[in-house]
Amino acid sequence: MTVRKDLIRVARGDGPADLVLKNARLVNVLSGEVHDTDVAIAGGAVAGLGRYSGPHELDLQGLYLAPGLIDGHVHIESTLLSVPEFARAVVPRGTTTVVADPHEIANVLGLEGVRYMLETSKHNPLSVFFMAPSCVPATSLETAGSRLSAEDILPLLSDKWVLGLAEVMNYPGVVHGDADVLAKIEAAGRRPIDGHAPGLGDRDLNAYVAAGIGSDHECTNVAEAREKLRLGLRIMIREASTAHNLRDLLPLVTPGNARRCLLVTDDRHPADLQQEGHMDHLLRLAIASGLDPITALQMVTINTAEYFGLHDRGAIAPGLRADLIAFADLHDIRPEMVFRGGSLVAREGAVLPGVPCGANVPLRGTVNVAPHDPYAYRVPASSGRLRVIGLVPDQIVTEQLLLEPKVMGGEVVADVERDVLKLAVVERHLASGRVGVGFVRGLGLRRGALASTVAHDSHNIIVAGADDADMLAAVEAVCRMGGGLAAVAGAELLAAVPLPIAGLMSPQPLDAVARQLHALIGVAHDLGASVADPFMALSFLALPVIPALKLTDRGLVDVQRFKHVSLFVH
Amino acid sequence: MTVRKDLIRVARGDGPADLVLKNARLVNVLSGEVHDTDVAIAGGAVAGLGRYSGPHELDLQGLYLAPGLIDGHVHIESTLLSVPEFARAVVPRGTTTVVADPHEIANVLGLEGVRYMLETSKHNPLSVFFMAPSCVPATSLETAGSRLSAEDILPLLSDKWVLGLAEVMNYPGVVHGDADVLAKIEAAGRRPIDGHAPGLGDRDLNAYVAAGIGSDHECTNVAEAREKLRLGLRIMIREASTAHNLRDLLPLVTPGNARRCLLVTDDRHPADLQQEGHMDHLLRLAIASGLDPITALQMVTINTAEYFGLHDRGAIAPGLRADLIAFADLHDIRPEMVFRGGSLVAREGAVLPGVPCGANVPLRGTVNVAPHDPYAYRVPASSGRLRVIGLVPDQIVTEQLLLEPKVMGGEVVADVERDVLKLAVVERHLASGRVGVGFVRGLGLRRGALASTVAHDSHNIIVAGADDADMLAAVEAVCRMGGGLAAVAGAELLAAVPLPIAGLMSPQPLDAVARQLHALIGVAHDLGASVADPFMALSFLALPVIPALKLTDRGLVDVQRFKHVSLFVH
Repeated sequence: MTVRKDLIRVARGDGPADLVLKNARLVNVLSGEVHDTDVAIAGGAVAGLGRYSGPHELDLQGLYLAPGLIDGHVHIESTLLSVPEFARAVVPRGTTTVVADPHEIANVLGLEGVRYMLETSKHNPLSVFFMAPSCVPATSLETAGSRLSAEDILPLLSDKWVLGLAEVMNYPGVVHGDADVLAKIEAAGRRPIDGHAPGLGDRDLNAYVAAGIGSDHECTNVAEAREKLRLGLRIMIREASTAHNLRDLLPLVTPGNARRCLLVTDDRHPADLQQEGHMDHLLRLAIASGLDPITALQMVTINTAEYFGLHDRGAIAPGLRADLIAFADLHDIRPEMVFRGGSLVAREGAVLPGVPCGANVPLRGTVNVAPHDPYAYRVPASSGRLRVIGLVPDQIVTEQLLLEPKVMGGEVVADVERDVLKLAVVERHLASGRVGVGFVRGLGLRRGALASTVAHDSHNIIVAGADDADMLAAVEAVCRMGGGLAAVAGAELLAAVPLPIAGLMSPQPLDAVARQLHALIGVAHDLGASVADPFMALSFLALPVIPALKLTDRGLVDVQRFKHVSLFVH
Repeated sequence: MTVRKDLIRVARGDGPADLVLKNARLVNVLSGEVHDTDVAIAGGAVAGLGRYSGPHELDLQGLYLAPGLIDGHVHIESTLLSVPEFARAVVPRGTTTVVADPHEIANVLGLEGVRYMLETSKHNPLSVFFMAPSCVPATSLETAGSRLSAEDILPLLSDKWVLGLAEVMNYPGVVHGDADVLAKIEAAGRRPIDGHAPGLGDRDLNAYVAAGIGSDHECTNVAEAREKLRLGLRIMIREASTAHNLRDLLPLVTPGNARRCLLVTDDRHPADLQQEGHMDHLLRLAIASGLDPITALQMVTINTAEYFGLHDRGAIAPGLRADLIAFADLHDIRPEMVFRGGSLVAREGAVLPGVPCGANVPLRGTVNVAPHDPYAYRVPASSGRLRVIGLVPDQIVTEQLLLEPKVMGGEVVADVERDVLKLAVVERHLASGRVGVGFVRGLGLRRGALASTVAHDSHNIIVAGADDADMLAAVEAVCRMGGGLAAVAGAELLAAVPLPIAGLMSPQPLDAVARQLHALIGVAHDLGASVADPFMALSFLALPVIPALKLTDRGLVDVQRFKHVSLFVH
């Protein structure tokens, strides 16, 4: 009440503003125009537009001023950064608010993981909202670190930083009225519920929408997006590190429907974050592809705020949060200054000294592996052909290959000549000692082994190698780090990225993580790896919801049949 | 939950729809296009779009199908109709939802009046939401029937049919941080708060918006509307019976800002409702003036639903209420069928037989006048010139005239030769016996008297006449009716419109009320009245918030100085 009275006083010109931004070219996402104005700020909010002055003025000298950018769908874990370091990386890029789905850490640590993310989101120059993960674990074909039921989600939803239900990937469950998933939707009530329904259409899509789903970020072409838009889904146009949908989907956007379209990142890897950027990259890409800049800015500000019911942001207007970005070129948006809650928090690409980025939040270790030895990876020879996971370059889908096994000493072994590596998934949550073993073609490794605790969605340890001893050494290396990525050859650890936060995230800054990762991938390439990012490729080989053949700690999964299958086909 | 499961089943094609509308040309306000489709309906909601069939089909044969129309700002009392009769009048016109400000009845009956409106809104084929009146009474310069404080408004806001705070007309109070009005705004919390700020601009407008106001319906030109739009107010483009702003404001609307624009009626009088229509009239007018029909429909459906947070309506999509209108011509929208909650409720201009319209809700009488006699209207002669209210044709503002009084027998009397009539406001809520007396020029009456219990905002009895005896007889006539409008001459009641509901509304259907009113106005014209609707003119003469000179039960008010003034200027 006092705050409001003060704001009103400043607005009407009877009280001093905390800060007056002079001579802005304001990108007004409400009126759809650019107009010159000063902006008076008080108590962290915009007090007034027009002509203002005050004891603290900053002359923008005709820089454009737009609302802070909002990412409506992001998995922070994909950046390998902690929330504070993520904030330090994206805020200078102009992002002032994100809506994150902590799905990855929830698979490792359940509610504890989500609460950790909530805690580490405080004291940063970034507003981090969350959606309650809806699909933990993803399937019953693997061992996850946790399980979230509707009863777990309900208390989460009462947190003011939790906005709704995260992407409901179990779309077959929704369409067929599965009680568990409907209970989660019911728990969300009138809050936003994000969807995830690649390729869903016709009546099944109607059923999905009728259940209460509000958005989708999995469209890959205009026809699919248009059908979803017509039925009422907000279309989150995704431009991720792996999935690049922006250029394909932009033709969907018209003046009559742009309000229902958003731009989101979903997943950004460290190198892309570092080299391309965050939401600023999406904006530049969209505008360079021909989208009107004001429309593009609406799609990362007011549209997103409206969908999520964030009524205090998304535009520059009296009473709204003073989350602002200043930049010189409307057609090549590169924020020079970023204001959050009325304070300058980043300038020329870096968070300003003195702006708090993070606090110490304790978290238990999550790599809990039973002692095991190279024998765990042994595959006794058998008759028949071998089921091998075939990597498809730049895709997360795989093929199922049927190959003749290479047998030595009564065991099936890796065959680097044919690029067939041994693959294992070591359960790391419950120390069950469970190890699933299979084979993969397409990684290209000639020697050594690569191991990772990032393995969607359960994030057990996945390891691929040319021999069992190196595989064991690589697994032991990531265990010693409390999680992370490692490359081993000759039983020697050659390079690593420690990810001690849930085995998913580093406490280091973006530059350090990107440097470590770059070095690690270089080593992997030296070992023969033939794909651009072999750890990325590895991370999807344990995901049993993406066709065709995947490996979990419980063994090979034929995804189309949604069941475990044997290593050998007789 | 069961309802949702059933809807999902129908959507995916595994259960029978309650109704399938075949061969619609759907006006999709979400995707901004028209496309052919069937619409499956179940449990009152849309289950699916696409190809559907079922045991109950209705072939629309290519009729356009659009969402039911929503009026975002209406005072139902202005139609002189009870809520059920209002519903019966507007639903066949395509209106399926209104957001009403029960400001008039609240001035007469306070919370009791608002609760009466809420009760009478049930069991109609119309969703009637309310905003809690924010300015009752309008001023301290008159005697209203009630007073609503922030404490009164708070419980009202917890009613699911009350959406927020109604137009905050006390904009000077907001701008200057008046505690009472800010307490009401505070009470509304995050709910929508409607504004009313004619001509407000610059810093004062910034202050008004900073306080939390979300809309304005008082713009009269594009420059004013653009300034308000830029600052974040939703622009309700009003086309009322008195205020016609639509054509003037349409140039404001662009593809980039249309989402922030709504069409509203505010006040519709019976004859206009009958002859022109309701929201359908606004649509036709806007489209005939060049607005794109889909944009126009968005402005009376999804835009309005979004502003008020009515997430279950405003578009045709799975899971939303099946409130629908069918019509033949997109450029001349005349609803042939109206569906509410999936049921056909009106066809070819009339509510279908069997559709419930209203229930009996008791309400106390509100005309509570102390006995008085013609002497109450006497004005003893005095020196100086007489302050006379000068009517301005077709405006609710008045002039202050200074005229020589006509004196007979020591009294100032009406002077029909100069068109100076006596005017009185008789307090009718508390039987205080208070009578304010003044004079008015511009009504044109040559004999007799006209009286009315509709007199903004306090709705005391206002009476104008050529002689005191007829004024008394007219007041007695409206008292006998328990409220209403009356024309008297030679002490004889010549015509009347009984308005027993709070002295504001009739229990009769629109046609009867329009007929009575037409006859009454005809009689008034026979008595010499020179303005189109002398009762409308009378109803604003007691409104002490509109300049320049007004009369309340407490005497003449100089509105600019916001104080009572004497009848004579020496």
